[in-house]
Amino acid sequence: MNQPNIYAVIMAGGVGSRFWPQSRERTPKQVLEIVGSGSMISNTIMRIQPLVQSNKILVVTNKLQKDIIHKQVPSLPLQNVITEPLGRNTAPCIGLAAKWISHYDPNAIMIILPADHIIRDTEEFLRVLQRAAHVAQENDALVTIGIKPTHPETGYGYIQFEDSSEKNPYAVDGIYCVKTFAEKPNLETAEKFLKSGDFLWNSGMFIWKASIILREIEKHIPELGEQLTKLGHAIGTETYQATLERVYGVIRSISIDYGVMEKASKVFVAKGDFGWSDVGSWDEVVRLTPVDGEGNALRGTVIAKDSHRNYIDAGNKAVAIIGIDDIIVITTDDAVLICKKGKSQDVKEVVDYLRRKQINGLL
Amino acid sequence: MNQPNIYAVIMAGGVGSRFWPQSRERTPKQVLEIVGSGSMISNTIMRIQPLVQSNKILVVTNKLQKDIIHKQVPSLPLQNVITEPLGRNTAPCIGLAAKWISHYDPNAIMIILPADHIIRDTEEFLRVLQRAAHVAQENDALVTIGIKPTHPETGYGYIQFEDSSEKNPYAVDGIYCVKTFAEKPNLETAEKFLKSGDFLWNSGMFIWKASIILREIEKHIPELGEQLTKLGHAIGTETYQATLERVYGVIRSISIDYGVMEKASKVFVAKGDFGWSDVGSWDEVVRLTPVDGEGNALRGTVIAKDSHRNYIDAGNKAVAIIGIDDIIVITTDDAVLICKKGKSQDVKEVVDYLRRKQINGLL
Repeated sequence: MNQPNIYAVIMAGGVGSRFWPQSRERTPKQVLEIVGSGSMISNTIMRIQPLVQSNKILVVTNKLQKDIIHKQVPSLPLQNVITEPLGRNTAPCIGLAAKWISHYDPNAIMIILPADHIIRDTEEFLRVLQRAAHVAQENDALVTIGIKPTHPETGYGYIQFEDSSEKNPYAVDGIYCVKTFAEKPNLETAEKFLKSGDFLWNSGMFIWKASIILREIEKHIPELGEQLTKLGHAIGTETYQATLERVYGVIRSISIDYGVMEKASKVFVAKGDFGWSDVGSWDEVVRLTPVDGEGNALRGTVIAKDSHRNYIDAGNKAVAIIGIDDIIVITTDDAVLICKKGKSQDVKEVVDYLRRKQINGLL
Repeated sequence: MNQPNIYAVIMAGGVGSRFWPQSRERTPKQVLEIVGSGSMISNTIMRIQPLVQSNKILVVTNKLQKDIIHKQVPSLPLQNVITEPLGRNTAPCIGLAAKWISHYDPNAIMIILPADHIIRDTEEFLRVLQRAAHVAQENDALVTIGIKPTHPETGYGYIQFEDSSEKNPYAVDGIYCVKTFAEKPNLETAEKFLKSGDFLWNSGMFIWKASIILREIEKHIPELGEQLTKLGHAIGTETYQATLERVYGVIRSISIDYGVMEKASKVFVAKGDFGWSDVGSWDEVVRLTPVDGEGNALRGTVIAKDSHRNYIDAGNKAVAIIGIDDIIVITTDDAVLICKKGKSQDVKEVVDYLRRKQINGLL
């Protein structure tokens, strides 16, 4: 096998309203230092660099975020930060990136990674990606990463795989044919999935040739394929920006899972077990953060008295807690979130409220 | 009886560390708008004005607070704001004010009021003061105000009175001879006090002639009396400031209760029942503040979801609470206090901690 030409595409369009008050339109989740050190996007880019050269890493984002991303990852050439005029879910985003990569090398492998996930075991992660790239290259296949579940999570979609190794030479490497994609389950179903052993968490990471995903988009979402063709012709020309705006004005919002993966035939899933989390809420951050003897995780200037099992991020203020248990406090220059542990999914509703009331200064 | 010449002395030297993070060295409790509208000191001054002309209202404070007090009460002549070089408890403060008043009129009645109390029924309050002034005037007596207790409070001192009207012509007006002063009791004792019917809360308000309290200070705290005499001679002269500094350098810290009231012979207590509180803690503020249908008291921009019985002061930030019950939140520019209801007496410990660590920016 020839060593494939590998590109990475970092999807960084998300707003991440669940991390309010830290996440804002201009500072969404992926540019925050939510867990550990370094922003999520810069960690995502650093993590992939042993496998992909910097000039082959593309970031797809929006205009609001372009500057801060470039500032956080100055090693990334500015022309590698591609902007979408507006978010249209993953299929258009991936299609746009595939067109750019095709412009340079249609046979290149592209690895698509969300910008806002954390991964503990980088080496294992890179091993899984390499195996996936090999399968994608050899079979012109679509490969996704499925995460070995550790608990009956109801916040993720699941992927069921075909565990019959006689039909699949890659099973030995943990790469399987996909049987079905399942939506976010309720708890009962999630428990069944976990017990069955053949369900994995849908991580939103993909590996395939640019040419193959474009062919599959043309086949399964022809109206998007048509617009992407126009866009492809405009790349490198003066009309690119105007074409981009026009194309995004007509295409509909659709996910690559629903639009392509669930319909395509040669779809594999590579099982990953490398300490992955999509860090979907403050509660998830709490679970990922070490605590002190009182069970507290305290960031910044925090004075705690008779208080236990709290997560307090004081920002650049001082926070004093007295007699407080099991809460999450996030302090920024203009806002304070105080949330009971286990309730942080409702942060989204606070942001929805601010949007409805058009309190734009806090968005 | 001649209409006495009445002065009021507002004692405004306190630091009020129990109202951190709002109360600071430069903005102590009395200049804050903690309950209702208007700062406590400006409300105290407005309340007394029907009885005392503005130019006969003196405020005793320290240098740090002089400007903000003058700004809050511009009607008060600047020379009526007297500063102490340092706090030495109530006896020196009252002695200093008495010397100033004596300078103008030794026979004047002086009404001494803490700057940081709230009173609901101003008319009844003024009626009690007038009766007390009458008794002080006619008898050259020391009169204090005792508050009819509503619950077995352990945070106040108590005054026991002699309930025998045959010996006391003023009993009909609710003014009694004092039997004993009692320190802050434990709960059991407080319950006994409440049940007995002859114990009142010590309010720290006093009414007497300037000349009489000076005579009593000379008698019971002779070393203070001696220093006050020096100070009295210096009033209106160039040496006043230097004398003041020198005097405060040698006098000891002593309360008027301990130094004089417990020892003097002609001591009366006027029973007051006018919705008084010394607002000693955030919990007391909570008790005094009306709540909404969820039991919350919300000041400023607060977004509350599934939250009950909280007191939230958002300052000029936005505060979002999710699934939070029974807490007190106070937000300022540089600090946030989050305190379980019923625990706000421990705020003082936070301030003590900041002092020990010399985190002066937060003091």
